[in-house]
Amino acid sequence: MDDYRPPVDDHRFLLLDVLHARESLQPLPAFAEADAELLTQVLEEAGRFVGEVVAPLQAAGDHPGCRFEDGRVATPPGFADAYRAFWQAGWPSLSCAPEDGGQGLPWVLEGVLYEMLSAANHGWTMAPGLLHGAYECLKHHGSEELKQRYLAKIASGEWLATMCLTEPHAGSDLGLARTQALPQADGSHRLRGTKIFISGGEHDLTDNIVHLVLAREPGAPPGPKGLSLFLAPKFLPPTLGERPDAGTRNAVVCERIEEKMGLHGSPTCVLRFDDAIGWRVGEPGRGLNAMFVMMNAARLHVALQGIGLLDAAWQKADAYAQERTQMRAPGALRGTGAADPIASHPAVRRILDTERAWVDGLRVLAYRTGVELDLARHAQEPSRRASAQQWCGLLTPVLKAVCTEQGFGGASRCLQVFGGHGYVREWGIEQIVRDARVPMIYEGTNEIQAIDLLVRKVLVDGGEGMFAVLAGLEGEMRASAAAERAHPHLHPAKRQMPFREDPGGPPPEGEGETEAVLARFAELREITKELVAAAALSDTLAYEAADDYLRAVALALFGWAWWTIARTPGADAPRWSQPAAAARLRILPEFDLRLGILRTQCAALRNTVPPRLSVA
Amino acid sequence: MDDYRPPVDDHRFLLLDVLHARESLQPLPAFAEADAELLTQVLEEAGRFVGEVVAPLQAAGDHPGCRFEDGRVATPPGFADAYRAFWQAGWPSLSCAPEDGGQGLPWVLEGVLYEMLSAANHGWTMAPGLLHGAYECLKHHGSEELKQRYLAKIASGEWLATMCLTEPHAGSDLGLARTQALPQADGSHRLRGTKIFISGGEHDLTDNIVHLVLAREPGAPPGPKGLSLFLAPKFLPPTLGERPDAGTRNAVVCERIEEKMGLHGSPTCVLRFDDAIGWRVGEPGRGLNAMFVMMNAARLHVALQGIGLLDAAWQKADAYAQERTQMRAPGALRGTGAADPIASHPAVRRILDTERAWVDGLRVLAYRTGVELDLARHAQEPSRRASAQQWCGLLTPVLKAVCTEQGFGGASRCLQVFGGHGYVREWGIEQIVRDARVPMIYEGTNEIQAIDLLVRKVLVDGGEGMFAVLAGLEGEMRASAAAERAHPHLHPAKRQMPFREDPGGPPPEGEGETEAVLARFAELREITKELVAAAALSDTLAYEAADDYLRAVALALFGWAWWTIARTPGADAPRWSQPAAAARLRILPEFDLRLGILRTQCAALRNTVPPRLSVA
Repeated sequence: MDDYRPPVDDHRFLLLDVLHARESLQPLPAFAEADAELLTQVLEEAGRFVGEVVAPLQAAGDHPGCRFEDGRVATPPGFADAYRAFWQAGWPSLSCAPEDGGQGLPWVLEGVLYEMLSAANHGWTMAPGLLHGAYECLKHHGSEELKQRYLAKIASGEWLATMCLTEPHAGSDLGLARTQALPQADGSHRLRGTKIFISGGEHDLTDNIVHLVLAREPGAPPGPKGLSLFLAPKFLPPTLGERPDAGTRNAVVCERIEEKMGLHGSPTCVLRFDDAIGWRVGEPGRGLNAMFVMMNAARLHVALQGIGLLDAAWQKADAYAQERTQMRAPGALRGTGAADPIASHPAVRRILDTERAWVDGLRVLAYRTGVELDLARHAQEPSRRASAQQWCGLLTPVLKAVCTEQGFGGASRCLQVFGGHGYVREWGIEQIVRDARVPMIYEGTNEIQAIDLLVRKVLVDGGEGMFAVLAGLEGEMRASAAAERAHPHLHPAKRQMPFREDPGGPPPEGEGETEAVLARFAELREITKELVAAAALSDTLAYEAADDYLRAVALALFGWAWWTIARTPGADAPRWSQPAAAARLRILPEFDLRLGILRTQCAALRNTVPPRLSVA
Repeated sequence: MDDYRPPVDDHRFLLLDVLHARESLQPLPAFAEADAELLTQVLEEAGRFVGEVVAPLQAAGDHPGCRFEDGRVATPPGFADAYRAFWQAGWPSLSCAPEDGGQGLPWVLEGVLYEMLSAANHGWTMAPGLLHGAYECLKHHGSEELKQRYLAKIASGEWLATMCLTEPHAGSDLGLARTQALPQADGSHRLRGTKIFISGGEHDLTDNIVHLVLAREPGAPPGPKGLSLFLAPKFLPPTLGERPDAGTRNAVVCERIEEKMGLHGSPTCVLRFDDAIGWRVGEPGRGLNAMFVMMNAARLHVALQGIGLLDAAWQKADAYAQERTQMRAPGALRGTGAADPIASHPAVRRILDTERAWVDGLRVLAYRTGVELDLARHAQEPSRRASAQQWCGLLTPVLKAVCTEQGFGGASRCLQVFGGHGYVREWGIEQIVRDARVPMIYEGTNEIQAIDLLVRKVLVDGGEGMFAVLAGLEGEMRASAAAERAHPHLHPAKRQMPFREDPGGPPPEGEGETEAVLARFAELREITKELVAAAALSDTLAYEAADDYLRAVALALFGWAWWTIARTPGADAPRWSQPAAAARLRILPEFDLRLGILRTQCAALRNTVPPRLSVA
């Protein structure tokens, strides 16, 4: 079983050559030092760390996985040492603010780092993955005293953190949460209740664990508006007379860890708060709002998990397909031996090229969103911050859903390349498939993401935000085409017409692929308008159409992503042109399928409304 | 965790009311007694046995699963008792010939039985699942002496059987197999080699195990034509002086069982043949041919596993969705409490209705194919046997691939209904997803099925067989429409127009759904012709197009399946009309997607061929 190898050259190509991330980021005062050399250096260092330290622990994460005994969790062999090396090297604070001890680098680098980490070892990566949200939450909403005590420790990763939201009867609907927070005379609260599905709720990786807990104060209204956020550490701060490094154990009890389909390297804990001491973070009744600050970044993290897991599965399948020989390939693909590498067989080629196309196209969308997240935080012009915020608000749910769905489904298709060998543990591919299933669920199920996109983001402004994002991309495409016309010798990829819609049609005029992207944008605008109109007539339509709409948005943008890859100098190499062809032939036609379903739904509604009115 | 409950009423409705299986089967002399009462009674008895005896062992199949020690396999607690009850009740021989001790009932009943069994407990079902192929193989190709010794024991299920085909370097390409068969003076052979992925290669369910082994005699040509089939029992027949019930152990050694993603209830063995004694079954060099006799039935078995697993997953998801309350549903779907059952939320409704539509539509296709398998064996007119054989040859690879893909993918979507609870072991849904992954691989990977369909079945006769199947269905549709016109009061479903293509279009004339099915058939004929023409110009096109072609065939037939359900009296109940609507809105549009991909491929070829020719 081969370990995952971080494909740093691909990351660099997509981030710097395709997306021009340096040109977007370095002009910001916060990132004045982030030149191409620094960005490349961070990617290379990250790749080295992930490949050498984290990737070799992948199998141990699955077996033996985490063990639970007497309220304690033992992480798999090697996990604690690797985590110590990780935080001591400063990786957790890569994009934290310098005033909190962070390195102040762009978030998008953290995003790529976490893609690599998830690919190498999803279970291990869950532990540090949660500290970033806690950092943002505390930074923006914590009192000075709490920040003083906890912020630097969390930023550095010396202490890990959890998000304690879910309860047995309150999952997607956190408003049903019942955990109580009883105020004390000293300003602290006593937390009482049981939280489930708490990743990293207990472990042996760090000296302390900082829990952020949603709970309800006495007299708070029912529903989400009655929830406040509290910080409850595993070990309380030392009081007078205690050694500074030895606080008292707080009353947070790990009752058990779940037996799961996969992700055995991450302990999923049931935590009982037995009048645990906690302090409120932010205003009473604003617990959910306090968490919104980190939601885009956290969901983008999950999207990058999906991409990483798919890339890890792809690497394994590709390596196996080069080695394994079975049957002779047809026609000119045939070699001279009794059997050819299965990578030469069209059935396997199809899987490899299509999943490669998914990884690359989704990377472009996710990295671009990472750059926008940096712009939303650090651009100087308020209008640029606002447009970046708009991009992130719209794209984040799309990416969370699409990347995690492809992470699981695509990993399963990569498993298929192994035949029966894929179903046994030996090759490590079935572990990836099992691990990849849960990102479709956590951090808001993919169905919740679709509702977030259509109901909460698109319908509320009549589609204006979505139209603005599309118009922005169209503007970039025009600018890019103009630049190409000025310097045609720099753009050999353009002559390959990698995006020509109908390879059987007449010889291209040179702009066929551009027109196809623009046509999808136009159709997306049309259906958005139709949905806005139809939703005014029906309370349920948007909920019924949400998943197909999210998928249509994703595919329209995916077409743009490959358009922009294909026009980058160097993209005419088979490494990029083969998946480009697969994207065109096998992935993008789904856009029309989704549009058709959405149109049918809108039309059905138009047809049923008049009779209803006539009854009234 | 609820056990699976066999939905016998649904089975009866589809088999008798929708497919009129009795009218097809009872006229055959072999099934003269198979009236509606008998067929119903068998289904009910099967449902009772499966629900009471096999379903409760599902969790034990996963944990502890099978255990291996010192060459022996211990099956999970309860498995052996259940298996004894199964064969003693006569279930294995349901469709075996009366002269072999069988009950001589239609194969389609065995098919439904195995769908139920796989749904209840896939791991347990693997054991008896393999004896049917061995029975057919031995019955048609074994010597009188071998049949005398083994046929009745296999038919009754007193002894189980295996198929020993795969070797470490020979999976999809069995022609690479190296296991040797050295002829002995007494007419027996000594088998030497290692076979892998042998389901039930060793276990404690029966007193003896009969292995059917592909091996190569000295001097045999390389490749598939050098392979012969041999029978090697775990215990040799008693020789003079031995007790009749105590033969000598043959030199077949179980080296280990595989650690798999799922299906832990079925031991997947590495078997070493250390000069094991075996006897040839059939002619030398005809080993693969000897196995073809059972291939359609075996692949149809696997298709039914996919359907069963999906139905089991659906039952769990449906039950959970009725119980679990989260958030208020939108609009008129809203109840009066603080939260509604998630079954009322459109996002969950969509999953449940769509997967329900898949189960029901695929059942119609699989059961119909089961009836055709019976006709292929027992119809009196040679022409009817031939047309039934043609149906089975074309439909079996389609069903094997589509049902197992949906079994896994659909089970995963059912898991999504549980949210985070689906990812933990407790509810049993993640076990179904893991178990359901392997049918996409074994008995010929789904990619091999697609090549079998397009290259080996469709292209070889220029599409004539496929056209005949479509024409046959069109004839049935005309006849059925004529019968409805004669008795309109019997056909309320027709007035529901469940198959109207465009719900937003003008009021239907009454035949819209019929036209949609016929239009898909016409498009399928066209693309088949295009592929036949294009394949003549390219050695690789058929291999590149095979998966999309299989999918297009499946969807065209799936449309017919729901057409025929929807026109059956009783099908206007929500139980059937809700999934019918989901099939129309969400499943059938994929037909156009696949057609589009196939057309693009054919067109690309037309465009590239002339330049190639001009170079020559």
